[in-house]
Amino acid sequence: MNYCTASREELEKEFCRIKKEYDEFCDKKMSLDMSRGKPNPEQMDVSSELFSCVSIERGFQNETGIDCRNYGGLDGLSELKKLFSQLMGVDTSQIIVGGNSSLNMMFDTVAQAMTHGFGGEKPWLLQEKVKFICPVPGYDRHFAICEHFGIEMINVKLNSDGPDMDSVEQLVKDPCVKGMWCVPKYSNPDGITYSDEIVKRIAALKPAAKDFRVFWDNAYAIHHINGKTDTLLDIYSECIKRGNEDLVIIFTSTSKITFPGAGVAAEAASPQNVTEIKKRMSFQTIGPDKLNQLRHARIFTDIEKLYQHMDRHAAILKPKFEIVLQTLNQQLSNLEIAKWTNPTGGYFISLYVLNGCAKRTVELCKQAGLILTPAGATFPYGTDPDDNNIRLAPTFPMMDELICASKLLCVAIKLAALEHLLEKQ
Amino acid sequence: MNYCTASREELEKEFCRIKKEYDEFCDKKMSLDMSRGKPNPEQMDVSSELFSCVSIERGFQNETGIDCRNYGGLDGLSELKKLFSQLMGVDTSQIIVGGNSSLNMMFDTVAQAMTHGFGGEKPWLLQEKVKFICPVPGYDRHFAICEHFGIEMINVKLNSDGPDMDSVEQLVKDPCVKGMWCVPKYSNPDGITYSDEIVKRIAALKPAAKDFRVFWDNAYAIHHINGKTDTLLDIYSECIKRGNEDLVIIFTSTSKITFPGAGVAAEAASPQNVTEIKKRMSFQTIGPDKLNQLRHARIFTDIEKLYQHMDRHAAILKPKFEIVLQTLNQQLSNLEIAKWTNPTGGYFISLYVLNGCAKRTVELCKQAGLILTPAGATFPYGTDPDDNNIRLAPTFPMMDELICASKLLCVAIKLAALEHLLEKQ
Repeated sequence: MNYCTASREELEKEFCRIKKEYDEFCDKKMSLDMSRGKPNPEQMDVSSELFSCVSIERGFQNETGIDCRNYGGLDGLSELKKLFSQLMGVDTSQIIVGGNSSLNMMFDTVAQAMTHGFGGEKPWLLQEKVKFICPVPGYDRHFAICEHFGIEMINVKLNSDGPDMDSVEQLVKDPCVKGMWCVPKYSNPDGITYSDEIVKRIAALKPAAKDFRVFWDNAYAIHHINGKTDTLLDIYSECIKRGNEDLVIIFTSTSKITFPGAGVAAEAASPQNVTEIKKRMSFQTIGPDKLNQLRHARIFTDIEKLYQHMDRHAAILKPKFEIVLQTLNQQLSNLEIAKWTNPTGGYFISLYVLNGCAKRTVELCKQAGLILTPAGATFPYGTDPDDNNIRLAPTFPMMDELICASKLLCVAIKLAALEHLLEKQ
Repeated sequence: MNYCTASREELEKEFCRIKKEYDEFCDKKMSLDMSRGKPNPEQMDVSSELFSCVSIERGFQNETGIDCRNYGGLDGLSELKKLFSQLMGVDTSQIIVGGNSSLNMMFDTVAQAMTHGFGGEKPWLLQEKVKFICPVPGYDRHFAICEHFGIEMINVKLNSDGPDMDSVEQLVKDPCVKGMWCVPKYSNPDGITYSDEIVKRIAALKPAAKDFRVFWDNAYAIHHINGKTDTLLDIYSECIKRGNEDLVIIFTSTSKITFPGAGVAAEAASPQNVTEIKKRMSFQTIGPDKLNQLRHARIFTDIEKLYQHMDRHAAILKPKFEIVLQTLNQQLSNLEIAKWTNPTGGYFISLYVLNGCAKRTVELCKQAGLILTPAGATFPYGTDPDDNNIRLAPTFPMMDELICASKLLCVAIKLAALEHLLEKQ
């Protein structure tokens, strides 16, 4: 049955049937949460060696003999600089290894621009207006940072190969446009990886604002699901080739590699940018938690160890994504009321329902005990202009919970669509 | 021999003798560092249980069943809120337990005031001028935060019972005066603890600026040396009594209790202040490293454990302070060229040499291989108007190093004084 071409009578009949199914779900009084991209306990068990690899017996000095218990070392341990250098495509001297949160590093970098500016330009807070380009759908916490600082956000469509660069190239002609958020690999929520062509066009941007920076949040740099990883062109090398090395600031973390709450984050950029960032940090802290950095250095002695580690995550995550996708396929194919991504990495399935139905679908799920990411969260100001995108996060729940949640989700999608179509007729 | 009353001939003879002693120290090619208040390895060994108390065997859930490996918990674990509540004198609901650095919390709180203001007032960066009261001598990193944000610093004398409150009460009449740094117990570097009277007068301040805040850095809250701890009146209770609860923001950390680089920091304030601070944090991070918090919760199951722990630190530190004080006494008594504090807690001995001789003394030490805290560092902008204060940090070096360093220091003090007196005559 194709809902969109069905008669009113057919739709009404279907509505009664689906409403009954929905009510049955409500009676079950579920309590499930698929709202955030949280690793599950089994994934965290993959990193259990972190608990024992730094100890009285195994010592607490790093490769250069630093007692990691004590003060010092503003930009992190040399071992981790080498590791992140390989992941981030910049020299070890340009890596800052931080605490447990790359979000914190991003926030602090924007905060620094607000109070001190970038590259000798005026602090953003003292400039007339500051705008950021936001490829959508995107990561709600990026948008929230902008909102916190009163930065105006401009939506740009994220296509299957990356942001709509024609728009981006136009927008950067405005000297008030100071930044752009990018999750270039396995993007949140669409799971797309920027094509070489798009990375090159970003690296070639010549914004009117000298203090324009691309915030390159490579959160899912090695987070494949299906056994092989997408390739992402190295943005910093591309920037160098074009004499544009100050354009980009790169972030990543091990939050979804080791422990979400107790991983290690890193930031990388041009020598000039790194000098500015470290100067601020030198007032802000004496240094990061080097013991936790040492734990990570000891379990990831080379990049191959890291890749093997990620294969174990993929093996755990694959069936979780599959069960959701399978249910969506079984329940919704041919109805013409929803489509969804089939990601090869990252943490999300991006679901698109009929225009105007996302909020209602999420609400129906909530009433039946299933919490999804709020509709609109993937857009600046929480406003999805088409009200059609829902981010699904299948990583945390257990398999039987996922089966149940997916079935309920499909019923909610149908019910919201039927309500919408019946109202329209 | 009293240098200050000696004849030129006596001084010249003494100069030759001391210069020879100094040259002998230079020939030894020492390499010692007494510049920072760093705990020594033996002290850190006191906290070795931190390495084993969270493990696969002992589990990683806290008292409320939170899996501390995963995301979540913006303001920290309940166990540590209870512990810090007892240390900081506020309700657990008003405690924010953070990462490894209270300096970071202070910086971020000032940064928040710069971009968002306090209590609904305009962001400090958009106000005409912002000034801070700085009791001197004080902590260089406090002053550095002000300098970073372009906050004008006003020196106020720190007496043996706390800041000169007559001056402070005058200064807060200026609406541009927005803050004041305090290290109220075992102050850095003078080691004094604010008297009840002074705490009450601070709590009773009625500044012209509604967004004035006292930054109460209780870094050495329980850091006694001599077996018994000074008592410090609880500032927050005193503020409450006077309807002044938003006046103060309190900071502390375990940096000098457990591991300097991998401790736990905390911030506490009125419900209104805490709401504002947590709001900013909700944009900045998903949460602190809860595993490291859990480690601390497990070794400090009650406040008595914490006190016993501090007694072990005191036992290690006491001889280190004693050897320096003993050498100063032996070498410098009756010369009338120096005086120094005899602290009962904290991390420093505060040395006062003849006016105009601090920089030269530090320089002479450096040339002979002993690094002291730069002269002037204990004052805003690195400028000690009398050039007479030197902060000594005897905690890190080993005993034999301290003996050697103290002797050299005394020779340098004498030589600088002699140069100065001979020049003056």
